[in-house]
Amino acid sequence: MQKVYLSNYELEEALNIYFNKIGNLNAETETVKTWDANGRVTVSAVFAKISSPHYNSSAMDGIAAKSERTVLASDRNHVVLTEGEDYIVVDTGDPIPREFDCVIMVEDLISAGENKYEIYQSAVPWQNIRPLGEDIVENQLIVPSKHKIRPVDIGALIAGGINEVEVFKRPRVGIIPTGTEIVEPGTELKVGDIIDFNSRTFSAQVSDWGGIPKRYDIVIDDYEKIKLAVIKANQENDIVLINAGSSAGREDFTSSVISELGDLVIHGVAIKPGKPVMLGVIHNKPIIGIPGYPVSAYFVMEEIAKRLILKYQGLEADELKKVEARLTRRCMSSLKYLEFVRVKLGYVGGSYVATPLTRGAGATMSLVNADGVLEIDQDVEGIEAGTTVQVKLLNNEENIKNTLISIGSHDPIIDIASDILHRRNKKYFLSSTNVGSTGGLMALKTGETHIAPTHLLDMETGEYNLSYLKKYLPGKNICLVKCVNRIQGFMVKKGNPKNINTFEDLTKQDVKFVNRQRGSGTRLLLDYNLNKLGIDPKNINGYFREEFNHLAVAAAVEAGDADAGLGVYSAATMMGLDFIPVCNEEYDLAIPEEYMDTEIIKEFIETIKSNEFKAKLDELGGYDYSDTGRIIYQRS
Amino acid sequence: MQKVYLSNYELEEALNIYFNKIGNLNAETETVKTWDANGRVTVSAVFAKISSPHYNSSAMDGIAAKSERTVLASDRNHVVLTEGEDYIVVDTGDPIPREFDCVIMVEDLISAGENKYEIYQSAVPWQNIRPLGEDIVENQLIVPSKHKIRPVDIGALIAGGINEVEVFKRPRVGIIPTGTEIVEPGTELKVGDIIDFNSRTFSAQVSDWGGIPKRYDIVIDDYEKIKLAVIKANQENDIVLINAGSSAGREDFTSSVISELGDLVIHGVAIKPGKPVMLGVIHNKPIIGIPGYPVSAYFVMEEIAKRLILKYQGLEADELKKVEARLTRRCMSSLKYLEFVRVKLGYVGGSYVATPLTRGAGATMSLVNADGVLEIDQDVEGIEAGTTVQVKLLNNEENIKNTLISIGSHDPIIDIASDILHRRNKKYFLSSTNVGSTGGLMALKTGETHIAPTHLLDMETGEYNLSYLKKYLPGKNICLVKCVNRIQGFMVKKGNPKNINTFEDLTKQDVKFVNRQRGSGTRLLLDYNLNKLGIDPKNINGYFREEFNHLAVAAAVEAGDADAGLGVYSAATMMGLDFIPVCNEEYDLAIPEEYMDTEIIKEFIETIKSNEFKAKLDELGGYDYSDTGRIIYQRS
Repeated sequence: MQKVYLSNYELEEALNIYFNKIGNLNAETETVKTWDANGRVTVSAVFAKISSPHYNSSAMDGIAAKSERTVLASDRNHVVLTEGEDYIVVDTGDPIPREFDCVIMVEDLISAGENKYEIYQSAVPWQNIRPLGEDIVENQLIVPSKHKIRPVDIGALIAGGINEVEVFKRPRVGIIPTGTEIVEPGTELKVGDIIDFNSRTFSAQVSDWGGIPKRYDIVIDDYEKIKLAVIKANQENDIVLINAGSSAGREDFTSSVISELGDLVIHGVAIKPGKPVMLGVIHNKPIIGIPGYPVSAYFVMEEIAKRLILKYQGLEADELKKVEARLTRRCMSSLKYLEFVRVKLGYVGGSYVATPLTRGAGATMSLVNADGVLEIDQDVEGIEAGTTVQVKLLNNEENIKNTLISIGSHDPIIDIASDILHRRNKKYFLSSTNVGSTGGLMALKTGETHIAPTHLLDMETGEYNLSYLKKYLPGKNICLVKCVNRIQGFMVKKGNPKNINTFEDLTKQDVKFVNRQRGSGTRLLLDYNLNKLGIDPKNINGYFREEFNHLAVAAAVEAGDADAGLGVYSAATMMGLDFIPVCNEEYDLAIPEEYMDTEIIKEFIETIKSNEFKAKLDELGGYDYSDTGRIIYQRS
Repeated sequence: MQKVYLSNYELEEALNIYFNKIGNLNAETETVKTWDANGRVTVSAVFAKISSPHYNSSAMDGIAAKSERTVLASDRNHVVLTEGEDYIVVDTGDPIPREFDCVIMVEDLISAGENKYEIYQSAVPWQNIRPLGEDIVENQLIVPSKHKIRPVDIGALIAGGINEVEVFKRPRVGIIPTGTEIVEPGTELKVGDIIDFNSRTFSAQVSDWGGIPKRYDIVIDDYEKIKLAVIKANQENDIVLINAGSSAGREDFTSSVISELGDLVIHGVAIKPGKPVMLGVIHNKPIIGIPGYPVSAYFVMEEIAKRLILKYQGLEADELKKVEARLTRRCMSSLKYLEFVRVKLGYVGGSYVATPLTRGAGATMSLVNADGVLEIDQDVEGIEAGTTVQVKLLNNEENIKNTLISIGSHDPIIDIASDILHRRNKKYFLSSTNVGSTGGLMALKTGETHIAPTHLLDMETGEYNLSYLKKYLPGKNICLVKCVNRIQGFMVKKGNPKNINTFEDLTKQDVKFVNRQRGSGTRLLLDYNLNKLGIDPKNINGYFREEFNHLAVAAAVEAGDADAGLGVYSAATMMGLDFIPVCNEEYDLAIPEEYMDTEIIKEFIETIKSNEFKAKLDELGGYDYSDTGRIIYQRS
């Protein structure tokens, strides 16, 4: 049952061994029409075949004249020129006949009757003439070899008489999804089914990198079937990507198939995620076995497949731009691997802060939300919070700088505000991370966030938020802005089959509860009530099962994994659950005073005060927005 | 004959008026399969329809067990579990049946006979279980509205049960080239013909910006024909681009056609190049009359058409990144226009220097060679050399930083060296600007270049280069590296019909000469010889006609515009001319000593010493490379 990775090559070493094994990939080229060559890569330097302009032409509207006939012209001695003999009329761009050698512009001409002009200054040879080859001279270099052709290059090439260019072929890339449990999107899902989306992501990546993707049907875990699929894809393509899955059995199939049909050069590279990658060669064509977990797959695609696909086209991967950022959380890493950590970047108080996102290999959303990647070298055991690190950018700096960072308590309305903010002003984005109310205040303390949504109940006074601001952020000038008052309650299955109405009901033998994580306001609300009622948490089945937001709790109830959870009304209705109200609570926004006057905060406050936002709250239900946007506490 | 621009609106104002006139462009949307949506832009925020995973699954290979049965397990009290009853075997990703609530990983299991395992530590509920919705929870926001879909988004959307997304339609963009003198590429060229390449550049640009280009046949300058073409394109597309040409007559046709069929909203915007642009609306669809000069066309496309095409897709143009650079030459500008100056950027001595490229509107190559654009505001008359300016980047910083800058004397072999350098090491580029030998030395003085090719003949001693280094760069430690010795001579038509063999022959009545610009080594060579022979330059017909490089001189002779020019052997043979040798001269490279140890200079010197380079020199002929790459002078 145990999986063995055959090797743990360092990434660059693995690529060197692999690329050497494959040999020269750049051989295949083709000739295409210049106007179809946008984005293609030149094989050799391209030199102009003709000059542009290919004749001497007028740079002005006016007359083409003989300069020798103008020598005597002056203010006091106008010279009369006669059409046909001394000049012809030319527009800009018109050719200059051999007998003329200058152009006098229309503004310097005085009409002197039919077919005649007077001039009052002499002209020098070649004035206002665009000489042959002014722009491009025959034999001049237009674009160098291994140059990615841009629209402006197409123009210059055609102008230089080049109607065809030799370019590297776009590699055909076959993509084989495998796995008995893998199903097509849209299939009615059974427990255990996994929707194939990796192959669709790969296809889009391959296109972005200039390859021509060809996706094959899903192949079940059957040695012979996988073998046949690989043979076919290997014949039909330049490169094969096989999504080898993560179960032990399937990986064995893939590696054995590659070994049988060709050569499994490398199995296992010292990167995380992505370590079980397979690099093989069949009939001199590369085949990559890509791990099944989406994040592992992503890094194998980015770090290995991308380089291969670009190499086919004579290109190197551009180095991603790096920025310096302060790491907000300690990041442990294994000495065995080069580790790629997805981070969310915030531009807070004039510098970047990087917050690591979920590190699980299956965290598709961490790829969607990542602004950058922090690489932790193989020989480094971890990086402490507060360290300045280099982050490779996946998002552009302008967007990051225009992103409002919200770290703290979760409510579905933060997503709604995010969307409305961006639609109100396309420049701005909102990024929210759910770490619970306490985590949000700590993030304010360390300068990681612009705002912290919070709903912390003071166990002693029964009041919300203010005492915690004073306790956790004693030296800071923090404003408290009213977001909403909202209803918390029990989320239960439709019809409330277990008849849960009170906190006491959670201790019933047949009731399974699902809790929120420590530090969240909702957890505090539960503990406050249990404490008040003298209920021992240990008597609640599921008290120790923690979810990180309202929707996840609701989803667990909806799926029947739990009978009840505590959360907001909107999450219950979104999931089609019943809701038993417990109390009203104050969901507010803690914002450092120094940010209150920034454009983005002002726009955000206008957003939550907008009718559009309030209409959405009405739709969701359970929110009181009568005071939304008001500053309810300010120190100064 | 005189052209009148109807207006001179400031760019932003013109766009506001125009976009207001057109109204809401974002209306057209369509629904596409998620896997076909790469690069498309969402209309609304997209929320997950299902959770992913949609069931609780194992995060490890091992067994799914009941945690309550493990409570007593310890090192001293192994507990035996029985398959089926206490556990089932699971691989990573397998679903966890409802009756089990934890996973014990294979590494912690001791085999205890068939269908039995011993365990030596207790398990807590939910350990090693990937709960339902861990990655994506139903109703969670996946991507916001107006978001450009990336490969990773496609994965997350499919994982969240979204198989179709509503996206903005890609606008169809009709492109009409006009002009009686305009011909298709590949046509046998007559004097006065202009090859249509603008429409091909436009097509590629439109594709890059997400539009669907449709190019129409060239329309001659005929009012009715242009009108019919516009009607057709307007019906078949969302946007029409008509390349209105630069001759006065044609522009009138276009503006009249737009006015007749619809509304010519703006004719003339205060940008240079690009001022005669027309912005019109026909049947509520935009039509843009784009000036004929390639550089004018480029800026109208970039500044106006691009924004329009992106707007159709709910996008805004990204601000180009700016860098600070020192301007190397004074740049005058008109108070009437916002001016776009193409610049070449160099990274010399740790900072950027920006050198303006040819400013002519027809300079196609200036677009190919530009690394950035300097915008000179409408109310600024010019910028002095040495000023620090903001330059919008067209090239990436990494490439610019890896570009060796060569400013100085021209020889076709510099293009060859550039190509070989890049092929030897793809990281490196060479950018050469031909300003003549003297200009190159001045560029070294002001720190604009890494190397300066030079062949300056000392009129007094008859020696090359060294005395000029001492004269122009007295305080600097400059090395002189031997490039080649080359033959200069008269380039004449095949068969030498005018029988030109000596400098005296240039003064013949029927001989037209074409000269090089002042400051170039070749000009100095001519002047040195004329002076020595007592020939008055005024007696040479064409002495004052200046071209900026050897190829341009050769092209003028080839075209019959001139009978002779002075230049290098290779330029003559490239153009199929005869060559009358005059002398050998030393073409060397002046390089500041501080750069001699940099990787890029070392690679460049290896390049010119390479057999590949020498083989090319042999092919061209007229070069002596016996000493190439040797340091022939070093101060220290």
